[in-house]
Amino acid sequence: MAERKAILVMGAGDATGGAIASRFAREGYVACVARRHADKLAPLVAAIETAGGTARAFGCDARVEAEVIELFASIEREVGPLEAVVFNIGANVQFSITETSERVYRKVWEMAALAGFLTGREAAKVMLPRARGSIIFTGATASLRGRANFSAFAGAKFALRALAQSMARELGPQGIHVAHPIIDGAIDTVFIRESFPELYQRKEQDGILNPEHIAETYWQIHCQPRDCWVHELDLRPWTETF
Amino acid sequence: MAERKAILVMGAGDATGGAIASRFAREGYVACVARRHADKLAPLVAAIETAGGTARAFGCDARVEAEVIELFASIEREVGPLEAVVFNIGANVQFSITETSERVYRKVWEMAALAGFLTGREAAKVMLPRARGSIIFTGATASLRGRANFSAFAGAKFALRALAQSMARELGPQGIHVAHPIIDGAIDTVFIRESFPELYQRKEQDGILNPEHIAETYWQIHCQPRDCWVHELDLRPWTETF
Amino acid sequence: MAERKAILVMGAGDATGGAIASRFAREGYVACVARRHADKLAPLVAAIETAGGTARAFGCDARVEAEVIELFASIEREVGPLEAVVFNIGANVQFSITETSERVYRKVWEMAALAGFLTGREAAKVMLPRARGSIIFTGATASLRGRANFSAFAGAKFALRALAQSMARELGPQGIHVAHPIIDGAIDTVFIRESFPELYQRKEQDGILNPEHIAETYWQIHCQPRDCWVHELDLRPWTETF
Amino acid sequence: MAERKAILVMGAGDATGGAIASRFAREGYVACVARRHADKLAPLVAAIETAGGTARAFGCDARVEAEVIELFASIEREVGPLEAVVFNIGANVQFSITETSERVYRKVWEMAALAGFLTGREAAKVMLPRARGSIIFTGATASLRGRANFSAFAGAKFALRALAQSMARELGPQGIHVAHPIIDGAIDTVFIRESFPELYQRKEQDGILNPEHIAETYWQIHCQPRDCWVHELDLRPWTETF
Repeated sequence: MAERKAILVMGAGDATGGAIASRFAREGYVACVARRHADKLAPLVAAIETAGGTARAFGCDARVEAEVIELFASIEREVGPLEAVVFNIGANVQFSITETSERVYRKVWEMAALAGFLTGREAAKVMLPRARGSIIFTGATASLRGRANFSAFAGAKFALRALAQSMARELGPQGIHVAHPIIDGAIDTVFIRESFPELYQRKEQDGILNPEHIAETYWQIHCQPRDCWVHELDLRPWTETF
Repeated sequence: MAERKAILVMGAGDATGGAIASRFAREGYVACVARRHADKLAPLVAAIETAGGTARAFGCDARVEAEVIELFASIEREVGPLEAVVFNIGANVQFSITETSERVYRKVWEMAALAGFLTGREAAKVMLPRARGSIIFTGATASLRGRANFSAFAGAKFALRALAQSMARELGPQGIHVAHPIIDGAIDTVFIRESFPELYQRKEQDGILNPEHIAETYWQIHCQPRDCWVHELDLRPWTETF
Repeated sequence: MAERKAILVMGAGDATGGAIASRFAREGYVACVARRHADKLAPLVAAIETAGGTARAFGCDARVEAEVIELFASIEREVGPLEAVVFNIGANVQFSITETSERVYRKVWEMAALAGFLTGREAAKVMLPRARGSIIFTGATASLRGRANFSAFAGAKFALRALAQSMARELGPQGIHVAHPIIDGAIDTVFIRESFPELYQRKEQDGILNPEHIAETYWQIHCQPRDCWVHELDLRPWTETF
Repeated sequence: MAERKAILVMGAGDATGGAIASRFAREGYVACVARRHADKLAPLVAAIETAGGTARAFGCDARVEAEVIELFASIEREVGPLEAVVFNIGANVQFSITETSERVYRKVWEMAALAGFLTGREAAKVMLPRARGSIIFTGATASLRGRANFSAFAGAKFALRALAQSMARELGPQGIHVAHPIIDGAIDTVFIRESFPELYQRKEQDGILNPEHIAETYWQIHCQPRDCWVHELDLRPWTETF
């Protein structure tokens, strides 16, 4: 068992994280899925195992350094070497600047940027001695442009992009592949279906992103030979304006 | 025969164009390869056919409107519907601004931008009625930054990037996938081997791009479902600084 | 007379070029204004001279190498050393990709990019021996984004931006200041007033750019000490979305 | 007294903040200068007053919401309406990713981004009812690129840039001018002189930025009429590579 390759999906609570975990599990990776409360991951673990894969659920508050360190130690000790780590957390909020509280500004950054830093740093620590592995940070439209009413979210996503760039330049020549896909469009999730039903109607015409297709791209990124690595790419539905 | 899907690689004279053609041929596409003098394409056609694929060589000066129009008409008439068109021409030259002649500035643009426009426009014309197809323009480091001594080449590659962006925004919602991969590094070609032998030595450590790996990415781009299209991505060796 | 400093505004046919010429003339520069037909420049020359300045009109097709070379030679010989050269030509056209003719694509590039190259190169030639001078290329929204129906115009403006970047990196350390202001919004011109009357109504609320304010910025750029040079900046009305 | 216009420079501890405060004071603005310990501002206040200006020193930990709120209230109550607010704090640190502690990552963000958010938000609150005022955030090279060993600093500066963009798009149409100059090069400060003596030697050839020249640009930004506002611009010495 300890010889099996592992992937960690940090932020496996939504459809995208789940699809990525499932995609790698299909290739024989042990899918280590993490979110704040591990019990909510039971359906995902069950689905992966029903499909013939192996999955492990971990409870972890990704904003808390000690918990992140312990998570990586557990996986490396109990599961196997982490070949891929995907950071997939980010809370999209929207407030005018004058109505953005200090608490919100800080929390959004802690979830999308600080947690990304802790995850990326610990991934680097376990991968560097092996000079091998992929670290993928999920970006969003707000990673590229600070729009009105998005000071907090864009600030956090910009910071995550800076992290991805800095780590790519630093770790690439040491054998670690760091990538930053930018998801530019609505994803087929429960959140979009329930909160933005009009937007969700675009699904009929492939107007929102299918998590399985995102997952396929992540898998392809992980498989790239080291002479031909992507760092940044945008993914959007054909009908999306940009 | 007329029912077989076709790909056109405009600028199939180098290793990258050849690898892309071969990759698509492996999937059953008729690889239509074009460069100024068709006879130079005989080895590529032979290689593709030896591997079990089908290929057709076309002579075409991509800077000449009438020749490009005729090329598309021939393929659609004699081969089959073009499902993918790859524009892969570009002459990397380097001159200080005061030593850049009007002739060079114009020629570099005609090869990398005007020819790209003609190719892209004719591709759009045949694909739009079918609301289907991929158009891929090959970018370079100079697509993103105008470095010293690169006024001509960067000008042409910037223009090609503008074309790709404009066409993506215009044709995406009409079902055509337009992508712009940026190759940021030396490729394993005869040109690099003979002209930059020191650079070529990086090959031993995967420090230059393998054309087959670039081709794999182009194939993946073409296969993306329309809810999850990439428009721009960078590809570079792990050791490349950026 | 030969000792007086000169500025050349290439493309002085519109309000912006005229305002820039006038602004520099106010500081004692001989305003050399050029466009295809010199006689159309008579009102501008008269206005500058009425205001106490000195101006000279030149007919020059900026796309024709020999004419541009002769223009620079004339000014340097008859007027004085060129301390600033502003390239201000660009024809904003809008066509869908399939309706963009080869002739349009080429003409738009010749006006906005080839002419910019010829102007910039000749400016570099006269300024380099003096290790002094400013070269300013006027950019537009289309310099940064290729929007639908803007393949030709964006291609030309992207190319001009590449030129500005390349020249800045090359000539900066040789004492020449190359800048690329991006005008992101409608300017108060006859063209906008007559062709886009609704847009022009924004003028009442300062919603379109005043050419004199653009000219003030160009003057400030020219005056920057060499330890603190701007290369790129965006200028837009307060109400403009971006 | 209450009728005099005020400028606040948050982070007036270095040469740049001091030069900006002095520049505005020369135009009759009351220069409100703030840093953690107000007593260290005595020399700056004395210099401004010796030159005939008016200055007020404030102690404020810009990372603490209550202190920032109180600072703005004090100035508006005791000094006059804030017409310009400059945020000039940022601690450039350099660590490899694996040696970046959670404490450093957080502190760098709190100083450069959280403090910028608090300052910008409070500035917006006092300026919005007047529909007038400039808010300027000082950017750095790391605002644009995440280089190796700069995860923390680039993350914070990217976040600040996102804030500037978001606020510009939101507040521009409400009359508030938000700008983000990017200082791309070493500034003539005690820090550079003492820590990077070799770099400092470039001063003889104008190879490092003079704070007074930066201040001049900030003043020009503040004076721009609302039809012609800059949002982002880069400032660097002529010899700087970029």
